[in-house]
Amino acid sequence: MAERLYNFSAGPAMLPVEVLETVRDNLINYHNTGLGIMEMSHRSSAFEEIINSAESKLRAVLDINEDYHVLFMQGGATTQFSMVPMNISLPGQKSNYLISGIWAEKAIEEAAKFCDTHVAGSSKDIGYASVPMTINPSSDAAYLHFTSNNTIVGTQYPKEPEAGDIPLVCDASSDFLHKKIEIKKYALLYAGAQKNLGPAGVTIVILRKDLWPRSAKNLPILMNYNTLTESKSMYNTPPTLAIYVVREVLNWIETQGGLAKIEERNRHKAKVIYDYIDSTDFYQGTANKDSRSLMNITFRMKNADLEKDFIAEAKKAGFVELKGHRFVGGLRASVYNAFPEQGCTELVKFMQSFAASRG
Amino acid sequence: MAERLYNFSAGPAMLPVEVLETVRDNLINYHNTGLGIMEMSHRSSAFEEIINSAESKLRAVLDINEDYHVLFMQGGATTQFSMVPMNISLPGQKSNYLISGIWAEKAIEEAAKFCDTHVAGSSKDIGYASVPMTINPSSDAAYLHFTSNNTIVGTQYPKEPEAGDIPLVCDASSDFLHKKIEIKKYALLYAGAQKNLGPAGVTIVILRKDLWPRSAKNLPILMNYNTLTESKSMYNTPPTLAIYVVREVLNWIETQGGLAKIEERNRHKAKVIYDYIDSTDFYQGTANKDSRSLMNITFRMKNADLEKDFIAEAKKAGFVELKGHRFVGGLRASVYNAFPEQGCTELVKFMQSFAASRG
Repeated sequence: MAERLYNFSAGPAMLPVEVLETVRDNLINYHNTGLGIMEMSHRSSAFEEIINSAESKLRAVLDINEDYHVLFMQGGATTQFSMVPMNISLPGQKSNYLISGIWAEKAIEEAAKFCDTHVAGSSKDIGYASVPMTINPSSDAAYLHFTSNNTIVGTQYPKEPEAGDIPLVCDASSDFLHKKIEIKKYALLYAGAQKNLGPAGVTIVILRKDLWPRSAKNLPILMNYNTLTESKSMYNTPPTLAIYVVREVLNWIETQGGLAKIEERNRHKAKVIYDYIDSTDFYQGTANKDSRSLMNITFRMKNADLEKDFIAEAKKAGFVELKGHRFVGGLRASVYNAFPEQGCTELVKFMQSFAASRG
Repeated sequence: MAERLYNFSAGPAMLPVEVLETVRDNLINYHNTGLGIMEMSHRSSAFEEIINSAESKLRAVLDINEDYHVLFMQGGATTQFSMVPMNISLPGQKSNYLISGIWAEKAIEEAAKFCDTHVAGSSKDIGYASVPMTINPSSDAAYLHFTSNNTIVGTQYPKEPEAGDIPLVCDASSDFLHKKIEIKKYALLYAGAQKNLGPAGVTIVILRKDLWPRSAKNLPILMNYNTLTESKSMYNTPPTLAIYVVREVLNWIETQGGLAKIEERNRHKAKVIYDYIDSTDFYQGTANKDSRSLMNITFRMKNADLEKDFIAEAKKAGFVELKGHRFVGGLRASVYNAFPEQGCTELVKFMQSFAASRG
């Protein structure tokens, strides 16, 4: 059996091996109940305990108080691109967006179907090499939406944009739980699970309770936040296995020492790779230093042939999924929470030896 | 470790133990690739092979030809309750529904948000003890929607309702793949996976290609069938693990001898229980014989106290989830494809001994 590889996939991505082992061991007979985890009724007391503890662990790890709903949904961030404007835009006011990359472009494009929109800032003119540095919201902003981390270009907001009194909405799909954030700064935050939190197929939505009554009445039933808040994410059968994995990842975060420790490790992991990139001309980081992502480290080499060789040789050496996103090319090392520190130092060694072989 | 129990859950429900073992064995290192099944990029060649083979196996097992799209979606049947009228209703024409139970009620209630509706038949006046026997579609029917199996009341259409030239739409969530059906009778068929096909979190949609261009342009992006057909279910990250399990269940159906064999076994399993119920006054079947479900066998006893005792003693004896749906009470034995034949004969033995003990 092949060893587990260093998997730099941008998502679905590596999960902690301890979590995978727990899932494996409960797949056929969950906690000695005589049923596998996928086979339990979502109305069973065993599953209720899972979804309730997933919520309470998430509340504990991020200090989310009772001013907020915590929802488990389906459909990924893309479904939230629709739901946010459908539910919390306001007639006669503009939904404001910060455009920091392709996913933000998709979010505002979707919002424009349902409400008036306003670009409160964009870094498109610099190829999204930084996040937008100046913010000019409209005077009638219903909310300000930003994408906290940009997987394709490898940028990330070092801190939340200043929104003043405007409700701040965040697509945190690709950096959720990589560090502690102050939830009270947010009106709404959503994240697909498949980067830091679990398998594809479940989306976390954290929603300030004073916002959701904005929702219109005649929305598709599952696109109305009211349906989910009133049923506690159980209007219909939720993705039970995916929620179970999320609960186990939250357990793992606890055992690692919580988000402070996770952040420290993430900063160290990224620094190892960025420091090496900065020390050589052989590789060039593509994101500006003021906006470098701790999650997705993007870089290039002199030409595409060299990059192709790099990807092929890296794969042989056990480093996979280093190819950049098809929209931008180049190389990308995604190093989410579960990616091991050793993988970063090993990658740097490989990068050094590859550079030496072509020097 | 407790033995695996006879799990009569109405869904999520029992899966074939061979499938669970395969999933377990690939959770940490899928087919020796060095990555777990949940950790693979949905754009990787390994996952492309999975989703493509899931589609081709489904096409093979049901003889689905190229006149149809096969889609893997999220959001369960409830999302389809919205999508069907949003996508294939027609202005000035009525969307027709057959009302055979609570789920059909929910489907038409949702449709009424988006189009004119018409009840083409209902068995509500008889407490849904049979499926609707007479069908009176409107002269301008855009489609005729029916619910092939009704989990709550335990009824099932013995064959498709006669729709003539009207496009037939089916919510097959709770009996999909329990027997071979003639796909060409259907314009659109959808099914949540969590009964016969896999874990909660993936929905199969089979869609005749001449229908989907009806979809309006400004629908939420993931509620437009066009988005899914054009991207081959990969517009955003699909629920990769759930699709993998579906592929393995389809493999299992092949190894069992295909749907003819599965149907034979299902008929035998249900007959064992219904024959016993019909032979005694101690238990009373609740569905009329013309509409009895092969999937969900509903019955009652003289009074609720006796039923409570039955459920408690059954649980001690290793038969779980026999409680009827909270809307109707009573008892329910759900015996989907993966439920073993032996469990049905064992249940009858238990029912006999319980009856004897109270006789």
